[in-house]
Amino acid sequence: MIVVMRAGATEDQIARVSQRLRDLGFGVHLSRGAERTVIGAIGDKAVLTGVDLEAMQGVERVVPIRQPFKLVSREFRTEATVVDVGGVLVGGPQIVVMAGPCSIESYEQLLETARAVQAAGARILRGGAYKPRTSPYGFRGLGEEGLRLLAAVRQQTGMPVITEVMRPDQVELVASYADCLQIGTRNMQNFELLREAAQSTKPVMLKRGMSALVQEWLMAAEYLLAGGNHQVILCERGIRTFETGTRFTMDLNAVPLAKELSHLPVVVDPSHGTGKASLVAPLARAGIAVGADGLIVEAHPDPAEALSDAAQTLSLEEFAAMMHQVRSIAEAVGRSA
Amino acid sequence: MIVVMRAGATEDQIARVSQRLRDLGFGVHLSRGAERTVIGAIGDKAVLTGVDLEAMQGVERVVPIRQPFKLVSREFRTEATVVDVGGVLVGGPQIVVMAGPCSIESYEQLLETARAVQAAGARILRGGAYKPRTSPYGFRGLGEEGLRLLAAVRQQTGMPVITEVMRPDQVELVASYADCLQIGTRNMQNFELLREAAQSTKPVMLKRGMSALVQEWLMAAEYLLAGGNHQVILCERGIRTFETGTRFTMDLNAVPLAKELSHLPVVVDPSHGTGKASLVAPLARAGIAVGADGLIVEAHPDPAEALSDAAQTLSLEEFAAMMHQVRSIAEAVGRSA
Amino acid sequence: MIVVMRAGATEDQIARVSQRLRDLGFGVHLSRGAERTVIGAIGDKAVLTGVDLEAMQGVERVVPIRQPFKLVSREFRTEATVVDVGGVLVGGPQIVVMAGPCSIESYEQLLETARAVQAAGARILRGGAYKPRTSPYGFRGLGEEGLRLLAAVRQQTGMPVITEVMRPDQVELVASYADCLQIGTRNMQNFELLREAAQSTKPVMLKRGMSALVQEWLMAAEYLLAGGNHQVILCERGIRTFETGTRFTMDLNAVPLAKELSHLPVVVDPSHGTGKASLVAPLARAGIAVGADGLIVEAHPDPAEALSDAAQTLSLEEFAAMMHQVRSIAEAVGRSA
Amino acid sequence: MIVVMRAGATEDQIARVSQRLRDLGFGVHLSRGAERTVIGAIGDKAVLTGVDLEAMQGVERVVPIRQPFKLVSREFRTEATVVDVGGVLVGGPQIVVMAGPCSIESYEQLLETARAVQAAGARILRGGAYKPRTSPYGFRGLGEEGLRLLAAVRQQTGMPVITEVMRPDQVELVASYADCLQIGTRNMQNFELLREAAQSTKPVMLKRGMSALVQEWLMAAEYLLAGGNHQVILCERGIRTFETGTRFTMDLNAVPLAKELSHLPVVVDPSHGTGKASLVAPLARAGIAVGADGLIVEAHPDPAEALSDAAQTLSLEEFAAMMHQVRSIAEAVGRSA
Repeated sequence: MIVVMRAGATEDQIARVSQRLRDLGFGVHLSRGAERTVIGAIGDKAVLTGVDLEAMQGVERVVPIRQPFKLVSREFRTEATVVDVGGVLVGGPQIVVMAGPCSIESYEQLLETARAVQAAGARILRGGAYKPRTSPYGFRGLGEEGLRLLAAVRQQTGMPVITEVMRPDQVELVASYADCLQIGTRNMQNFELLREAAQSTKPVMLKRGMSALVQEWLMAAEYLLAGGNHQVILCERGIRTFETGTRFTMDLNAVPLAKELSHLPVVVDPSHGTGKASLVAPLARAGIAVGADGLIVEAHPDPAEALSDAAQTLSLEEFAAMMHQVRSIAEAVGRSA
Repeated sequence: MIVVMRAGATEDQIARVSQRLRDLGFGVHLSRGAERTVIGAIGDKAVLTGVDLEAMQGVERVVPIRQPFKLVSREFRTEATVVDVGGVLVGGPQIVVMAGPCSIESYEQLLETARAVQAAGARILRGGAYKPRTSPYGFRGLGEEGLRLLAAVRQQTGMPVITEVMRPDQVELVASYADCLQIGTRNMQNFELLREAAQSTKPVMLKRGMSALVQEWLMAAEYLLAGGNHQVILCERGIRTFETGTRFTMDLNAVPLAKELSHLPVVVDPSHGTGKASLVAPLARAGIAVGADGLIVEAHPDPAEALSDAAQTLSLEEFAAMMHQVRSIAEAVGRSA
Repeated sequence: MIVVMRAGATEDQIARVSQRLRDLGFGVHLSRGAERTVIGAIGDKAVLTGVDLEAMQGVERVVPIRQPFKLVSREFRTEATVVDVGGVLVGGPQIVVMAGPCSIESYEQLLETARAVQAAGARILRGGAYKPRTSPYGFRGLGEEGLRLLAAVRQQTGMPVITEVMRPDQVELVASYADCLQIGTRNMQNFELLREAAQSTKPVMLKRGMSALVQEWLMAAEYLLAGGNHQVILCERGIRTFETGTRFTMDLNAVPLAKELSHLPVVVDPSHGTGKASLVAPLARAGIAVGADGLIVEAHPDPAEALSDAAQTLSLEEFAAMMHQVRSIAEAVGRSA
Repeated sequence: MIVVMRAGATEDQIARVSQRLRDLGFGVHLSRGAERTVIGAIGDKAVLTGVDLEAMQGVERVVPIRQPFKLVSREFRTEATVVDVGGVLVGGPQIVVMAGPCSIESYEQLLETARAVQAAGARILRGGAYKPRTSPYGFRGLGEEGLRLLAAVRQQTGMPVITEVMRPDQVELVASYADCLQIGTRNMQNFELLREAAQSTKPVMLKRGMSALVQEWLMAAEYLLAGGNHQVILCERGIRTFETGTRFTMDLNAVPLAKELSHLPVVVDPSHGTGKASLVAPLARAGIAVGADGLIVEAHPDPAEALSDAAQTLSLEEFAAMMHQVRSIAEAVGRSA
């Protein structure tokens, strides 16, 4: 860590900051420039949580040298993590496509969708039983009945299932049905939910908060690993920017960046990332080309009748066409689909 | 609601959309332009939750005419809501300043801070017992012990207290100690927490999500009112933008905008909104000048020793100086402090 | 165009707005809802430039139905435009890679780079003679001497050249040397420069402003077409967002969106879009996968010695490796490179 | 400057970077941590323009210690700059309000507006003769005829005038009529225009780019001072964010921040910063409360008839009411209006 002192900082202020750092167990180096003194602190930054040197007199700013996360970092673990979702490996040589309806509506709807996306090459079934909704008057999902339908369709098709959990006290229930827990973008920094999910034996797919820095996303994943759950998949799903022509802006820079910084697998969600069905296939191709380990895509037998997210949902035919394209891209980057 | 059909939409597509709207109970008007047909739908948009016309063939986009919220709107209730926080009225002619430490650390720290901010003119005591932290290794707050300290200091000083609640299943516990529940920026769309808080008898201060539209903020407040809790205070606390010279960007446009759209009182948080102690007083002045009903400000006897948010925390002397300035501004806008 | 009247608008206000619209040559339809009246105006929105109905009493907002651009739109021209840059076709079945140094430094540097990128498959040479620099103390480029070097290297290699123009009164000079004019991100709404470039006989590559909506980018292109220059290439080069882990955020959603809305070819710039050499190849792959017609990439014989943009510049070996990957992706999407 | 080496950087890489820094005239200090070596470079960063150490092998990132601007900084000049605009002092104890129509339309319109805003307390007249327009089909302003009208109305009223200049080769012409040149938000990084304006004898008001960091805004001002023009006024006019409820987001944090970092006066533009007439007065109050030295506001005898920016333009009565409020705030912060 580097502490930059203000141009007019006094010797006394410099001495106090240096002493504080020594008290915290840091080695201290002073560099005196023409106008400013810079204090280098060598040691473990973790000690500093709960201390904020920027409030000390004479300090201009504190520049961290190391990333604030540990267990999720490439420095901690160099080889890529492969996450096992009910027998399907995410992060290995084969890319993994998760697909299904935004909301689970009925057994028939879910089974029809599952069979179609499976035939097209999807290997994990997604479907929402508990739905976060901007409006209190929106459809909230079927709840536990939806979880039962997921389990029934898994039974029929053999596809592992992923579904969202929204409350800390529902983690156990959802985990008893699902092969993978999903934590949604609005809950990325719901730290209480992260703490509970960290104690689950099921893997977790952690969506990036729509205004989260890549660093904050990895810190949220650190909650899961620090709490004991090392089976974590990252999911880039679009960030909020000034652009209004699309629902969100897919940040594909974040995929290779996250993979440089971390050993965790990364998937992308072009459905939410664009909000527009016509853009889903192009961005799915781009996601695999940029190096993602998989995709999560919304598909429905009749998007116009879907109870949520209709504008960004692919029909089953559109989904199959997208898979065809995605497979070509996967091969072009030396993977299979 | 206006449904804009694509340039090449067929008569059949136009007829299907019109029929769908009639089935949903809307009155339908067609306007045929040179290139496009526009369908006006007259009726209650709420019926449409769970339906997404944009996925119907031939539809280019759907333009809502009414705001999606109801109970929080000025159209629903024209006079301003005044919220009673333990006897202190927020939203009336007198502005209200809430102040205290980011984290509750000890009885002595809290009492010293409370007495000082009260002497300077603050009327509600803030303090965190449960702390959301970006890092899993950060100080998480004293928990229920912190709540007990808050209650003890209220007993000593007579100041009502506000503190954050982070889990649905803690709402009741926190409400048993606090005069007002705070829902933090990362939980603005934690819908499960909103549903629980809606059932509390205590008022709720709802911080704007750091990337939430004003419309989404009001929709989150709608959750509280729709669930039965009409005692809601909105809090603008800075949004995430590209600017890195400050921690967040205070969106003071949002204050008069929210007050045009809604009858709820609005306070501003210049501590989080700037992240820099030297900017807190200027933005506190601006917040009152723009029309806010109050402020929430972090203060501490020794900011450099604070266990969190030190860089943006005022010393007790700085706080008193700020109050002096804020009082002048309050008078200039015809209010008292 | 739809004019939404306020909830309490008077009959008189509605009548005035309707009359104003009729005076402007619009057909007018009224839809009266329970609370609001909506006025549909049918006709050519272009008449309305210079008129702002939102300021009329009783008007809540005006909703445009048609996109504000014309000549650049898919509706105006359905087939894709192919731009001829010194014999190289941009927008056809073969993707086009433009490469070269950020700044032209010397004949040797430029020739060595040109030969290497040409051998690797690039077909247009880029290089900056006039450099926009954030600091007034930065290297500003070699100016006309740089243009002469570009022409000399074209002579040697046969590669057409593209270079940036920054002042209206330099358009003619730059066009006398270059095969394609580049308008940079900071000048996308330098309307005086657009007007001059519109009169050039050379094609123009228009970079998206770093905070420009896709709609505004197309409006800037409309300046060029409206002024008579139909040979326009769009370039997505990253937008400004809250993310600080990369220099900009590549908005790959914008590529298929721009191609839906417009007939103009689109290329992407992964060098500026990421700001990090290690991310250039992944985003180049993604750009081609998403449907871009080409790439523009910074390469240099010794990036560490480059006079500008060193951190995002590929070495010639890295460039060749990237081309190898890009070619595979181009084939996977049915194109050649 | 601090150079952070990668975790696995070799001794040879560290030695090369150190040598490079010494060659550039820096003093060099090494701090070796458990995992990383950090190199402190002491000296004048300006030497480094045109060099990019981040591309050297083994370098993780470079952390600048000093701000990149000099002449505009508080460290260079501690007392506040006061700019003389035709006899009106901007940056002194009295706040200055500039007002007038967005576009100059006629002598009558301009004179009526000028007399009314002057009577209400405005001291500088604004009006656009050359208008930047998003659409090529919009009203572009009266050009030199508009400049003549400005001069004529100055003659009648005694008010100094400010107007926008858009092309480098028009600086002299505009300066021959105007008392202050305005550089608009889209031209903040039009470096060629800045270079010309730097040579004018007239003061310059530099609007912040809608996506410019405060640091970049000050760097653009540095162009003016470095080129010889020290009479510079900064203008915050709203930044582009995700919020769509207002046209832009006023960044009032930027006002005290810019004044901490720089000695230049700062004014705010609540008309463009909000885009909504009903929000102009609240944000004008907030701007003065936060510490701005003045305001620039759009006013028109009949906003609904204005040829541009009608939705955000105040009527002359609304302007007078705003001035009344602004005067109270000015007094509350110890200034006059």
